[in-house]
Order: sequence, then structure tokens, then C-alpha cells
Amino acid sequence: MRRRVGVWLFGARGSVATTTIAGAAALNHGSPPAGVVTELPAFASADLVPLDHLVFGGHDLIETPLLKQVEGLVAGGVLPPGLETLITAELAEAERNIAVLPESAIGQLAMVRRMAEDIRAFRLRNDLEHVVAINVASTEAPYEVTVDGLADLRTVLGEREVLPASSLGALAAFEAGAAYVDFTPSTSIRPPGVREWAVDRGMPYGGQDAKTGETLVKSVLAPMFATRALPVHAWSGTNLLGGGDGATLADPRAAESKSISKERGLTEMLGEVAGEVHIDYVDPMGDWKTAWDHVLFSGFLGVRMTLQFTWQGCDSALAAPLVLDLARLSALALERGHVGAMPFLGFYFKDPIESTEHSLARQYDELLRWVQPC
Amino acid sequence: MRRRVGVWLFGARGSVATTTIAGAAALNHGSPPAGVVTELPAFASADLVPLDHLVFGGHDLIETPLLKQVEGLVAGGVLPPGLETLITAELAEAERNIAVLPESAIGQLAMVRRMAEDIRAFRLRNDLEHVVAINVASTEAPYEVTVDGLADLRTVLGEREVLPASSLGALAAFEAGAAYVDFTPSTSIRPPGVREWAVDRGMPYGGQDAKTGETLVKSVLAPMFATRALPVHAWSGTNLLGGGDGATLADPRAAESKSISKERGLTEMLGEVAGEVHIDYVDPMGDWKTAWDHVLFSGFLGVRMTLQFTWQGCDSALAAPLVLDLARLSALALERGHVGAMPFLGFYFKDPIESTEHSLARQYDELLRWVQPC
Amino acid sequence: MRRRVGVWLFGARGSVATTTIAGAAALNHGSPPAGVVTELPAFASADLVPLDHLVFGGHDLIETPLLKQVEGLVAGGVLPPGLETLITAELAEAERNIAVLPESAIGQLAMVRRMAEDIRAFRLRNDLEHVVAINVASTEAPYEVTVDGLADLRTVLGEREVLPASSLGALAAFEAGAAYVDFTPSTSIRPPGVREWAVDRGMPYGGQDAKTGETLVKSVLAPMFATRALPVHAWSGTNLLGGGDGATLADPRAAESKSISKERGLTEMLGEVAGEVHIDYVDPMGDWKTAWDHVLFSGFLGVRMTLQFTWQGCDSALAAPLVLDLARLSALALERGHVGAMPFLGFYFKDPIESTEHSLARQYDELLRWVQPC
Amino acid sequence: MRRRVGVWLFGARGSVATTTIAGAAALNHGSPPAGVVTELPAFASADLVPLDHLVFGGHDLIETPLLKQVEGLVAGGVLPPGLETLITAELAEAERNIAVLPESAIGQLAMVRRMAEDIRAFRLRNDLEHVVAINVASTEAPYEVTVDGLADLRTVLGEREVLPASSLGALAAFEAGAAYVDFTPSTSIRPPGVREWAVDRGMPYGGQDAKTGETLVKSVLAPMFATRALPVHAWSGTNLLGGGDGATLADPRAAESKSISKERGLTEMLGEVAGEVHIDYVDPMGDWKTAWDHVLFSGFLGVRMTLQFTWQGCDSALAAPLVLDLARLSALALERGHVGAMPFLGFYFKDPIESTEHSLARQYDELLRWVQPC
Repeated sequence: MRRRVGVWLFGARGSVATTTIAGAAALNHGSPPAGVVTELPAFASADLVPLDHLVFGGHDLIETPLLKQVEGLVAGGVLPPGLETLITAELAEAERNIAVLPESAIGQLAMVRRMAEDIRAFRLRNDLEHVVAINVASTEAPYEVTVDGLADLRTVLGEREVLPASSLGALAAFEAGAAYVDFTPSTSIRPPGVREWAVDRGMPYGGQDAKTGETLVKSVLAPMFATRALPVHAWSGTNLLGGGDGATLADPRAAESKSISKERGLTEMLGEVAGEVHIDYVDPMGDWKTAWDHVLFSGFLGVRMTLQFTWQGCDSALAAPLVLDLARLSALALERGHVGAMPFLGFYFKDPIESTEHSLARQYDELLRWVQPC
Repeated sequence: MRRRVGVWLFGARGSVATTTIAGAAALNHGSPPAGVVTELPAFASADLVPLDHLVFGGHDLIETPLLKQVEGLVAGGVLPPGLETLITAELAEAERNIAVLPESAIGQLAMVRRMAEDIRAFRLRNDLEHVVAINVASTEAPYEVTVDGLADLRTVLGEREVLPASSLGALAAFEAGAAYVDFTPSTSIRPPGVREWAVDRGMPYGGQDAKTGETLVKSVLAPMFATRALPVHAWSGTNLLGGGDGATLADPRAAESKSISKERGLTEMLGEVAGEVHIDYVDPMGDWKTAWDHVLFSGFLGVRMTLQFTWQGCDSALAAPLVLDLARLSALALERGHVGAMPFLGFYFKDPIESTEHSLARQYDELLRWVQPC
Repeated sequence: MRRRVGVWLFGARGSVATTTIAGAAALNHGSPPAGVVTELPAFASADLVPLDHLVFGGHDLIETPLLKQVEGLVAGGVLPPGLETLITAELAEAERNIAVLPESAIGQLAMVRRMAEDIRAFRLRNDLEHVVAINVASTEAPYEVTVDGLADLRTVLGEREVLPASSLGALAAFEAGAAYVDFTPSTSIRPPGVREWAVDRGMPYGGQDAKTGETLVKSVLAPMFATRALPVHAWSGTNLLGGGDGATLADPRAAESKSISKERGLTEMLGEVAGEVHIDYVDPMGDWKTAWDHVLFSGFLGVRMTLQFTWQGCDSALAAPLVLDLARLSALALERGHVGAMPFLGFYFKDPIESTEHSLARQYDELLRWVQPC
Repeated sequence: MRRRVGVWLFGARGSVATTTIAGAAALNHGSPPAGVVTELPAFASADLVPLDHLVFGGHDLIETPLLKQVEGLVAGGVLPPGLETLITAELAEAERNIAVLPESAIGQLAMVRRMAEDIRAFRLRNDLEHVVAINVASTEAPYEVTVDGLADLRTVLGEREVLPASSLGALAAFEAGAAYVDFTPSTSIRPPGVREWAVDRGMPYGGQDAKTGETLVKSVLAPMFATRALPVHAWSGTNLLGGGDGATLADPRAAESKSISKERGLTEMLGEVAGEVHIDYVDPMGDWKTAWDHVLFSGFLGVRMTLQFTWQGCDSALAAPLVLDLARLSALALERGHVGAMPFLGFYFKDPIESTEHSLARQYDELLRWVQPC
């Protein structure tokens, strides 16, 4: 009988994690798997771990019970009414697997060790074949890492603070023999030393910053303009969002991480274009997000034309099925012994690691080619 | 020295034809080739006929001078101010190559022969290596063709009216040794007998109904929903347009041709979805078109979300560079001795002939593979 | 002690009626009165009947219990979760006051008498000071009434079918001594004979076709263009809606009633402008409605500009508080002995009876002037 | 015979001024007066100065000929093609009336005197009955004025720099016996001392910050929500604009003046609502502006709904006819001997001086009442 795969979530009590855990439970109770890409027929032959073989756990700073978080998401219209009573068993199981993040006062090396122990304990307790750690915590502010290579990092980590929390999580995952995927635009696996650490431990890593809304649409519209030879002069965007993610991004430093990550793809697809991207925290929007984009381009002989779009979505509900995809695909990478960066997961990310391909269609083809190698 | 390629336009004095002829002249005077896909670097190695080797001619019912049509398009903001004085020589050359459509009273077989003679005379007079005939006339109402195969068609064509004008144009092209491309959703090459006629004469044909606006955007957004496994429940659209094309589509029978062609791709990409498509003639919009689309889809666990877009463009300015592309690519097909349907041109069409692929990204890849067979 | 006012709803089990009844109950339990115009401070001095003095009843063809209808609206997101358990007493009271519509086989005069008896019984049973009958049934198809004056109508009504259902309801109200307001674009009080009947009985009447969405917005935007002297060339609109109202309007004859009513105001505010209005039934939209409007206007020296808006609302939730307003205001009219048309209620209607004023701002002022005669 | 009225423009070579001067000339040549409110029938009885009796002059820092500015606006699609050749005489006349702004090195009191002399000379040279000075210069950054009353201001002005350029212009106008209107959100007439100066000289003044686009639409939509008792939770806006005004507003300090002025009305109409307003400089937009607004409101029982609008306009073409209106109306104020603030001009302004009324409809009524005192 096939053994189970663990999904270790950094930010395990946040909206994305809660929607993922509750949603996976709902699927096991018969909900159709809307948004789960790996349930498309094209993935059927890949023998991915079944969705009901995923076991959830993770770290969080806060201790609010999962059930309470689920109730909040039901009230906000993110999860369907009545779900909380259907899935109490699954929530209780995940609840047992969530550990409180260790105090930073113990030093960064000690933190990595303690977090790695939590992940190892999760694996043993649940008899898991593989574990995939996924960072779904709030967006971190940019962090300048000054230590370069693996050797230096090892030395200095025991002495002083040199990495942000997201990178410590990545190291803990590698130490515990888990794959690591960054769903956010945080520092995590950006420093070369962190990537070398993964390779040294023989682990795969992927990311960053899942594309779930405005950037997803951009990643099909920008190639449209490019392949139709229509010059884009300006691309402007405004994102309105409430909820926890919105509150985090109301901090200009966190918003900066997000904006950088959002801009990169556009430039790589179209070259330099004018226009700004705004991320506004609008508290009454709750868990909902609205993005408006305005594209000024020209046609034959320079005639000016425009395309505008408005996207109205619920980020957690768009993100959660992708977390399930990434867990299954990373488990496949572990099974295949893949080590280092997973650029073939670029389909999921605004800022795909070790890849300059941003066209959704090409990213999808690349993913399928990796999943079905011949 | 390389010889020149003729572009024979059915509807040679219409907005699309005029913009194409005037625009090609403007490019020769140094305008950047915005919208001309075959000028992208990816096509550089294909040795396509240079844009300044294209010679324009065609048929039309009306006799308004091209220069007057150009002035109208300048006033409407489709062509840049002052262009009319820059390109008088090129307009005069094209003017000499435009023939008046023969009277239908002479019978359909005689019409085909007379039109074919016009095309042959164009070739000889201008010493052309290849000729590509492109239908840019107004959208025709649907026409039920009751004659089935080539043999029957040949017999009956001399006796009574069995084909609409667009199909007669296609036959004339084949008779004159020209490739044929239908830029509209007209009947033209739909009847099997017409296609067999092309094969019998060893000629290639392609079409139908160029995608320049709303459907272009649909052909990247629909695959986005499909590859992200997001179920689309309803896709509604309203198109507002003035100008000549708008006036034609104010006739419900012509609009029917257009709507059928617009709907096909969506169903093939997403399956059956609810929603209507409206085409409204709004005279004061002039040559400009605005399309609004509303897409209702659901994410994880059925949460309802929407995407809306508004496209504001000038159809003639979007169409003209594609006419240049299709002329160059069809000339390449003639050079390679390609006979019959050209499904590899699906990138350009709402209703691609002998193809069920509607994703713009895949269509682009298919086009490139054909251009560079390596 | 002040006596109570009855609100008799034609279509008493439909979405608008159910939302009105359930909403009034919710207000009595402390919900804030969002959307209830007569709760604004400007109306405080008018001594309108308190909201908790309204008693609901009505006619309907169907017999689905109100509670079941409420549950459906809760599931559709129109009413807040949990409301159904809070207001069971109020629903039960209204349920007792709902009568089944008499069979049309008994003849139109008999129907009027039977309906009037139901209304009189409602008044007696609940010891009501005034009764206001409001038509919130589905939109009726246009109906040509060939009988002209009151005398003729009285004669013919006993002999053959000459009026649509909505007009019979109006007559029943007048017979029972109730005011009548048409919330829909149905025939109801359009025939002169029906209006004379009201005057003959000394009753007030008002309507028609409540403006709750697209037309509401039009009634402030059109005056903006007019007072700023900006010529509007075209105004186009598309309405997407599901639910019961959408299904009714999917019938082209009912949609015709609606469109006529929607167009009238625009012409009266701006003169003839180009553009069509579409009403599309999109089943998956449920109780929600989206309207997109595109306005083409020109500024100084004829420069073309556009304004577009998208309205996303829930019709029943917009309509219900207006039903409460109309009940209170009509009760005031009864108290003041007002007889005949109530043009001062134009603020609420797309097609205000005996008024050509469509500017929302002026209509509001007119309403206030009537309420506070100073 | 009626004598003529002078219009003195601060920023006389800018886009708004050039469009005003060229447009007034075009009207005299027969263009219809789109956008000129005072040409509506409601103003016919007011005996305002005829449009062809207006004479233009002004101050500017730059010396580019008006004709060159007109050519630029024709190329940008703001003015109609060919206009420059039709109105050469009028442009030459205005050109003669434009003075270079004096150097600030001469001291502020000396500047006021020199500017006042320029205005007096303009009046004498053209034999003008009244002069109205209107500030259409670029938006100034906020400026803290520390001198309070008229007496202090007079003393200190000869000694050191205490006022921004816009206020000096206002004082010059008052000294020269001219009315003053601020079309921008600059400091100008905000300091109490400047207002007292106007009263002391018996002059009227008005402003500030003309509402021509997004704020205009807000001033009818916000009252719609208010009178319908629909609570607005958040109102977010993004303005994209190029051209000179855009470049000025790319300076965050100037943008601040603009945003403060834009926000004020909303708060006064709706109370505190969440949401930000962005002003983005997007160079390729040229003279065109696009504004997108997103309004989150709730209906009955708190159901969330949204209204979005997109405004696409050309600011200069919207502003210029209002400059003509303000000149005529201020001339009427001078004729009537009105002294001090002109709050009855609030119809034209985002930040109406000495008025808290922001509803466009009420402002229009107020304007009409002042024009026709009955």
C-alpha cells in the first residue's frame, strides 16, 4: 500500500493554509476539485500521490484553533457554509500536527535545528514517505543577506542573526529531508548559501510568489501582445485587497517585495514599459481582491489602443488548490531524486526560480513535459 | 533579383484594404512595422518576401478613389495625419490595379472566368512571381450551398446561381493560379466543392475570420482558465462598433455569420458555457470598436469570481498588418508547393480551417514550426 | 396608540417580497436600515409609520412556504446566514396573511371582487389603519388594453377578458380602499380606465418600475452630461442577470416591457441618443446582476470621450428597502387624503407616473418637498 | 455698443490656456459650443457677455509661440486638424497680449506691482470693460503661509518672500481691478490675508481646482449613494495621465495638493470612507487621462455590492469651455458689484470656496439661482 505525503506549512493557521487544509478535506468528502491543476486529465498518467494521501501540519506564531479560522473563512464567503461541521475530524488531525514556532531568542542555528526536529517528528508520527514544506506565511519585507556561500553561512549562523525567518524555514526543511517551496515573495531561498545548503542535503526547492490573480492574467496577455507584434507603451495596475494579506501589504516594505516580484515578469515578456503597480489595503474588502489593469498599446502605424481588465477574486480560494498541486509535484520530484531548483514549476509563480519564462502557456507545456518525460 | 508578389484584395476599396495598401506604403517610407507579426525576429530566417516587394490590386463594387478613402481614414484617426501626401505614388499604382467587379447578370461561371482574367492580367502587368488573393470584403450573410462535390459544381455553375460572391472569388483565384485566404466569416471556401477545386488546381487556401480584438483576447484567456482548472460558468460579450463593418453587421443575417464564428472557439476551448455575444452597430463610434466581456468562473470549492475586460481598438488598424502577414506566408506556401488547406495559419483566425486548436500560444508555436521546419 | 399599516404584496412569495418581509423583521431585531431612504434624518420630522408597525400579507400563485424562500435567499448570499432562525415568528405571521390568487376561470370581475375581499379580510384580521398594495410580481409582457374609460371598463369587465393580471390587482386594491404602487413595468395602472377607477374610489396610486441599478446610475449621470453641456452620442448597456427575474426576462416579450421602461428616461434627459440596451439571462449569476454601460460623448470642439461603468448588485436587496419606503410614503398619502397619481414618488421609478422628471437629484428634492410641505 | 471683457490667464501658453484661446476662436468660426455650460438655454436670459466679446491675454514663464502650442495640441488629437490655419488672426491677437512673468529677484511686492501693470495695460490697450484673471498654471506644491491678516501681509510683502507665485497673481489681479478665479488647487486665495486684500479692493474671487473628470463623476455618484441611504465603505481611484499636467503631478508635492482637493468633497458628501486616490504620470498617455474608480457599498442587511467606472477624457478639452464660463460669470459678478468669495461657482470646482456643497445637481441649481435672481 502506498504511504502518505506530508505537507508542512509555514504559516499553518493563516488564510491560505486554512483554506488548503479545509479544502483538501472537502475534496475527500466529494467536492469537485476546481482549481487543482494536477487533477486535469493531462496529469492522470503521472501517478501523483492521491489527494487523500496528503497529511497536513506546520508552524505558526499564533495559536488560534484551526476550527476558529475555518469559521472566519466561512463567514467571509471563502469557504462554503456548513463546511466546518463536515470536516471536524480532518481539522483535529491537522491541529495536532501544528507546532508553535520557536522563540528567536535561542539563536538562528538553534531555531533551524528545533524547526527541523518538528518536521522530523511530524514525519515519524504520521509515517510519511515524503514531506514537502511550503511557505504560506505573510509576505516578508526585503532583507539584505550579507553572507555569501554555504561555508560562511554555516559558520556565522551559530553566531549572529544573518537570515530572515523565511530562510530559516527553508534550511529547517532541508535539514529534515523535506522539499521546500516558497509560495510568497520572501527572501527564503534567494541567498546562494541557502540554495547550496539544499543541494548539499540533496533536496529540491521551488518558488517564488504564486501567481493567482492579476499576474496570472498578465502572463497570458503580455505574450499575446508580444506574439502579435503590438508594442505596449504602458501597463498600469491597481490592486485593492483587505484581509490579513492586505494588512501585511499595507506595510510599504512588504509591498515592495510584492511589487518587485510582480514587475519582473512584465519586463521579461515585453521589455521596459511605463506604468506603476499599486497595492492598496482596503479593509472592508475582507478576503476579496479586485485588480484593475490598463494597457496602452499601439497598432499599425502607431494608432493608440487600450485593453483594460478587472479581476475580482478571493486569493485564498485561488491559492489553496495550487498548494495542493505544489505538494504533489514536489513529492514527485523527491521520488525522482531531483536535487536543487525546480524551474519546471514556473507555471505557478510570478518570479519563477532559475527561469526567465513567464508565458503561462509555455510554462504549462514545460510542466507537462517534466511530468511526462517522454 | 527577387521578383515581386501580388496581393489581390476582394473589397479593395474598403477600410481594411485601404489601410493595408496605405500602411504598406507608409512602412516603405520608414514607419515602424507595429502589428506585423512576420517582422518579429523569430521569422527572420524564413526568407519571406520583403514588404516592399508586395504589389496591391483587387476587385471592388464601388469606384471611390483610394485617395479619398485614405483621406476618410486619416480624418477618422485610423491613419496618421499627412500620410495621404506622402504616399500618392503608391496609391496611384494600386489604383491602376483595381478592377470593377463584373456584373452578376453574366452568369456565375462567366464571372469566375472574368475575375480570373483580371487576376492574370494583374500578374502579367506587374511581372509577379506569385499572387495571393485575400477576401477583405464585407461579411456576407450565411448562404446554403446545395451542390456537393467538384464534378457537380463544375456542371451546375454554368447553369444557375449556386454560390455566393465570396466563393466565386475563391474559384477565380484558383483558376488564376493564386492562393486564397478568407479574412472574413463568409461562405467562400466552406463548400467541399470549392476546396476540391483548389486541390484540383494545386492551390493552397486558408482562413477564416481574422481575430483582431475580442476573440484574440478570448484565445489567451480561455486557455488560462482551462490550464488552471478553473471552471467557467458564463462568458458574455458586447461589441460596439460603427463604420462600414458595423453597418454590415447591423444586418442580423451578417451578424449571424460573425457570431457563429466567434462562438466556435470558446466552446472548443472550454466546453459549453452560458452567455450571449452581442454585436451592436453604434454609428458615432466610427472606425473604433469597444468590446466588453464578462466571465463568471469559480475557484476552489465553488467560490464565484469574475474577470471582465474592455478592449478599445481600431479594427482596420489591427487587421491591416495581418493581411500583410497572410500575403507573405501564403506566398511561402506557394513557393513550397503546398496544396489545399493551410491549418498552420490558425494563429490569425477565429474559425481556423481544418483545425480545432484555438489557443493563441499553441497556434503561434504551430505557425513557427511550419515557417522553420528545421 | 398608533395603529398599524398593512403592506399587501402581489407576488408575496417572490424574491423581492421575501427579502422585504425578512428584512423588515431583521430591522426589528436590530439590523441597521441600509437602503431605507425614509430612515434618513431628512425624513425624521414627517412622522411616517414606524417600520415595526408594518404588517405583511399578499397574493401569490405558488404555495412554497416563505421560510423555504428565505432559506434559498440565505444560500444565495442575499440574506445573511442565520437570519431564518431569528425571524421565524415574523415569517409565520406573514405566512398566515398570504392568500392564493383566485382562478382566472371565474371571470375578471369576480377575480377583482375576490382579491378585494382578501385584502379587506387582511385589514380586519390585523386591525390595520391603512393598507398599501404593492405589485412585486414578475414583469408582465406588454398587453394591449382596448377598453378606454371607466364606464366601459365596468361594463365589459363582467363579460370578457380585457385586462392583464396586474390591472386586476390594482382594481382590487382600490375596491378594498388600499393605495396601489406598481414596482414593475407591467400594464397595471397604465390604462386610463384603471386610473379613473382609483379616483372614483378616492385612492392614490404610484409607480412604475423601480430603479435599483443601471437606471439609477443613469439618472444621475445623464443630468451630469446635460448640465455640463456635454453632448452624448451613444449610450449602450448590457445587463446580465440570473434568478427568477432573469428567467422572466429571458422571455423577449417581458424583456420588451423592461427595455421600454429603461429607455424612456434617457431620451427625456438627453434627447435621442444611439445605442441599445440588452438584458441577458445568465442562469449561473443567481440573484446577482451585473450591468455594463458605455457612454460616448464629446467635449470641446467635438473631441470624443467615453465613460463606462459596471454595476454589480443584488436586485432583491436593492429593491426591498424601497418597498418599505413606498409603503410608508403611500400610507402618508392615504392619511393626507391624497387621491390619484403620486408623481412625487418619481425618485423610486424608471418610468415615473405623470412626471417627466428623471434626474434623481431633482426627484429627491421633489419627494422631500412633498413630505415636508413646510 | 457693448464693450469687451478681458480674460487674463496665468499660464497663458499651457495646454488649458491654449485650448481655451484656440477654442474660443473656433466657436467664433462656427464650431458648436460643446461643453460651454453658459450656452445652455437656461442661461439665455442672463445677458452674459457674448463669447466673441472675450479678449485673451496673460502671463507665462515660457515664450513658445501660441501657434506652436496649438500645433502640438492638434497633433495630440485635442484640437481638430486644420484648426491652426483657420484661427491665425485670433492667435496673433492673443500672442500680442501675453507678457513674460517678471523675475522673482525683484521682490514680491515689486512683482505684484509689475504684474498688475501688465493687466492694466492689457485693459487699456484693448479698451475692456472688465477683466477676469484666471489661474490655469501648473499645480503648485502646498505652501505654508505664515502671515495672517491683510495688514501684516502688506508690511511683510515688501521685505521677504511670504507667498507662493499663485497668490502674487491673485494680488496683482485685485490691484488691477480684476476678478480672480483659481482653476487649480494652488495656494492662491487660500491665505486669509489674500482674501481680505480682495475685499479691500472690492473685487470678487472664486475657485478652486476645476472638476473636469473623476471628481465630476464623483459629485453625482456620491449624492446618489447618500440619497438612497446606501452606505459606502470604500472608494478607491487611480488616475493615469501624461502631458504637462501629468509631469507636474509626478512631483509628489504637487500631487499632494491635488489629492487633498480631490478627497475633500467625498468626505463632505459621505463621511469618512476607506480607499486611496492615486495620480500616476504615464508619459505615453499624452494629453489623455483615464480614471478608474471602485466603490464598495452595501445594500439591505449589509449585502456587499460594487460600482466601478472608467472615465477616458482629454483634460484640456474638458477644462477650456469651463474657463469661458468662469470668465463670463465673473464678468457678471463684476457688473453686479459682487465683492469677495463667489461660492455660487461651486458647480465648477472640486474644492469650492466658502461652500460645503459638493453635489453637482445642487451646485447647478445654486448657480442658476444666482444667475437668474428672479
